[in-house]
Amino acid sequence: MTESKGDWQAALLERLGERVSLQPGDLNAHAHDEGTPYTCTPGAVVFAASEADVLATLAVAREFGVPLTPWGAGTSLEGAVLPMPGAISLDLGGLDTVGEVDPVGFTVAVGPGVRRVALNRRLRPHGLFFPVDPGADASLGGMASTNASGTTTVRYGGMRENVAALRVALTDGRVLTLGSAARKSSSGYALKHLFIGSEGTLGVITALTLRLHPLPPATASVQLAFPDVGAAVLASVTVRGLGVTPERLEFVDAATVRAVNRHRDRHDPEAPTLWAEVAGRDGADVEAQLALLREAAELHGGQVVGEARTPEAQSALWAARHGVYDALRAAWPGHATRIGDVCVPLPALGDTVALALHLLEGADLTAPLVGHIGDGNLHLLMHAPPQDSGTWARIDHVLHDLAAHAIAVGGTCTGEHGVGLRKRPYLRAEHGEALDVMRDVKALLDPLGLLNPGKVVGDPDALVEWRNDVPARP
Amino acid sequence: MTESKGDWQAALLERLGERVSLQPGDLNAHAHDEGTPYTCTPGAVVFAASEADVLATLAVAREFGVPLTPWGAGTSLEGAVLPMPGAISLDLGGLDTVGEVDPVGFTVAVGPGVRRVALNRRLRPHGLFFPVDPGADASLGGMASTNASGTTTVRYGGMRENVAALRVALTDGRVLTLGSAARKSSSGYALKHLFIGSEGTLGVITALTLRLHPLPPATASVQLAFPDVGAAVLASVTVRGLGVTPERLEFVDAATVRAVNRHRDRHDPEAPTLWAEVAGRDGADVEAQLALLREAAELHGGQVVGEARTPEAQSALWAARHGVYDALRAAWPGHATRIGDVCVPLPALGDTVALALHLLEGADLTAPLVGHIGDGNLHLLMHAPPQDSGTWARIDHVLHDLAAHAIAVGGTCTGEHGVGLRKRPYLRAEHGEALDVMRDVKALLDPLGLLNPGKVVGDPDALVEWRNDVPARP
Repeated sequence: MTESKGDWQAALLERLGERVSLQPGDLNAHAHDEGTPYTCTPGAVVFAASEADVLATLAVAREFGVPLTPWGAGTSLEGAVLPMPGAISLDLGGLDTVGEVDPVGFTVAVGPGVRRVALNRRLRPHGLFFPVDPGADASLGGMASTNASGTTTVRYGGMRENVAALRVALTDGRVLTLGSAARKSSSGYALKHLFIGSEGTLGVITALTLRLHPLPPATASVQLAFPDVGAAVLASVTVRGLGVTPERLEFVDAATVRAVNRHRDRHDPEAPTLWAEVAGRDGADVEAQLALLREAAELHGGQVVGEARTPEAQSALWAARHGVYDALRAAWPGHATRIGDVCVPLPALGDTVALALHLLEGADLTAPLVGHIGDGNLHLLMHAPPQDSGTWARIDHVLHDLAAHAIAVGGTCTGEHGVGLRKRPYLRAEHGEALDVMRDVKALLDPLGLLNPGKVVGDPDALVEWRNDVPARP
Repeated sequence: MTESKGDWQAALLERLGERVSLQPGDLNAHAHDEGTPYTCTPGAVVFAASEADVLATLAVAREFGVPLTPWGAGTSLEGAVLPMPGAISLDLGGLDTVGEVDPVGFTVAVGPGVRRVALNRRLRPHGLFFPVDPGADASLGGMASTNASGTTTVRYGGMRENVAALRVALTDGRVLTLGSAARKSSSGYALKHLFIGSEGTLGVITALTLRLHPLPPATASVQLAFPDVGAAVLASVTVRGLGVTPERLEFVDAATVRAVNRHRDRHDPEAPTLWAEVAGRDGADVEAQLALLREAAELHGGQVVGEARTPEAQSALWAARHGVYDALRAAWPGHATRIGDVCVPLPALGDTVALALHLLEGADLTAPLVGHIGDGNLHLLMHAPPQDSGTWARIDHVLHDLAAHAIAVGGTCTGEHGVGLRKRPYLRAEHGEALDVMRDVKALLDPLGLLNPGKVVGDPDALVEWRNDVPARP
């Protein structure tokens, strides 16, 4: 890390004018993400509105040795968008153009600041949609940067499978175009994939070409209760063997159903529960898939809680799944949350859920457990009063044990939230010597160490000067 | 490139014993691939049977400065497996173990030498298959190295989407494990993807974990004739909008149908022709998909040539598509072939086919044109007597113009065959400054330049000492 030298703020103001803000309101708005308790206030925010603005900002960072952290929508959960205190937050929200939809190739070019929900509103009249759904209304650039995924990944893949091309600005001022709108290629090294999931540590994404998908002509949903999570996994495997790949396949544990029942005055069976949405050509097609889902569930001891065909009925059916977070807020008002995010090979999912529940019990904690069961991706919604440091220590312990377990069974410490600051301690165990190669790649592409310093492959114990600036949990 | 110093062959023999062959028969068997006219005879072949053998070979290469080229099944088409003359060919065919099939996570671990057809024979009793089908009975390691794809990519993706994890040996002796059997991850940089498609220039793949898919319960096929290729593209787009994603979607041009008719005594309409295979839960499901395919075809001026439900009938229907190469061999006995391989965004496919036919006509050439139409991937099966240098010059010219066109319309110079030696001249136009970053990555991972030197990102005009060894076309 080079030391900042000279008046970089003046240089930013001179070159980028009104795009630069030193106002406390703007600085504070870029000092937090949605998932970590840290406050990291930048010294300047650049509201970039063009690739030229990005390059001008990178030039100042390079010339003055100022660290720079890209900012999309601020919805990161592990600290990926937190700037170095006093340094530059590069807000890409203004790069929000949506290009013409290609109705033949099913692609669209977007700026990194375009939000997911707005994009899908624009796509709907074309009969198309962008499937990756991480829950939050994140920016597409941010989603690519964390290789985001979510409820529909079981069917459509995550960002990695749905980003056709990227434009990326490097710290040295080069702008690379990676990938293309062609559906495949065997030409050269897959640099595009290196930048997807790199959390702004290798370059700044200035444009994306996305793959789109046709809106399904018909959908239906079913809610199924199982004796245990292993049975739910096997039912999902059986149904795939029968030729059904659901659009979504979501799981919650029994205690969470109980909490949602209480909160919403529902009376669902308080058992491990699976929601599946299927899509098809027409009503008969989805009906046939529902029948196979029922058959597969019954084969593994499951029972139907409810089925829904209309959009309204499906919303109602899914409300119990989508109501988990609200139920948590209602049951424990004033609590802060921290969401665990491990992903394991499917055969290990049942035991991983069992371990999670065991760890919670041992630590005298309760936390809703939700999973993208088709992907083996598990979330624990940990919660405690923000200043209850004893409980937070127990929470950290549970999440640590769970991440270590996920790696030990051949999985990953983060299925979709990214590494940011808090998953760094697990990269050595997960990647072994490959971590050294990742660090070499970082040094190759960002030799001055200016891009989102310390995140992802950074030393988990380094960044002392930055850590000194971090207040204790509020 | 370092100069070889000392008696590396003796060192190989000493350390690897009977794994090493200096026999002319073995050397000659590793001097050709299936697609290029070059002869590059290695100085030694190592028949590795374990990762330890690979590491021992890499150690000799490193210590003595001897170039090394991994060899899978020798089915490459652009020279990727050709060794440096006089150097090491590392034959991985002996790393052919197939691990236990995971019937829940749908994965299997295999050695890089396992062949595609043998693997699928092993998987069939499990009700699973590995979908990537490049035509040739290639090795899985070779397929990963070229990011191979093929007829089923429209539905299942290519190698990139179906390799869950890799073990890769680097020249410095480190062995990296990249990726995992978990279905997704946001942990660290995607090094796995860097090695997929790198054609053995960055490391040697010693093991792969593959994603498997359930064998479809039912399939059916249809053959459709269209007024032009643009109409066929639009029909394929329409049918996707109706909720049908075929397993395969293959195209041939009118002249090729004519040639196959003549060769097989068939009477198919001599028009641009599409074959589609659909898969479903049962007969009713595939019947409904066939109906939508017919509807979409008719909407765009297409007509049904034939339909097939049973495996036998489907084989017969597809025979005309699969008979293209045989028809070529029959029509022009003794000709050698060179297969063009460009991939363009779908909206550009119609014009690209038109350009290809125009270029052929202008050069007074005939060549079957086949395409993976769902991917925008086009092959021209060029052919001429091996020693007819005038015709080969015209062929090279046509393929050059076609590759340049593909890049100009936002596509790629190789959809699935890889770069090898012959697509190197296009990488600058296709990737711009990203090619420099690719070369930096090559230097980072193979600092001595020993791994498959000159391939992919190498200087297209370099390797003079190697080129001097290449005889003229036989």
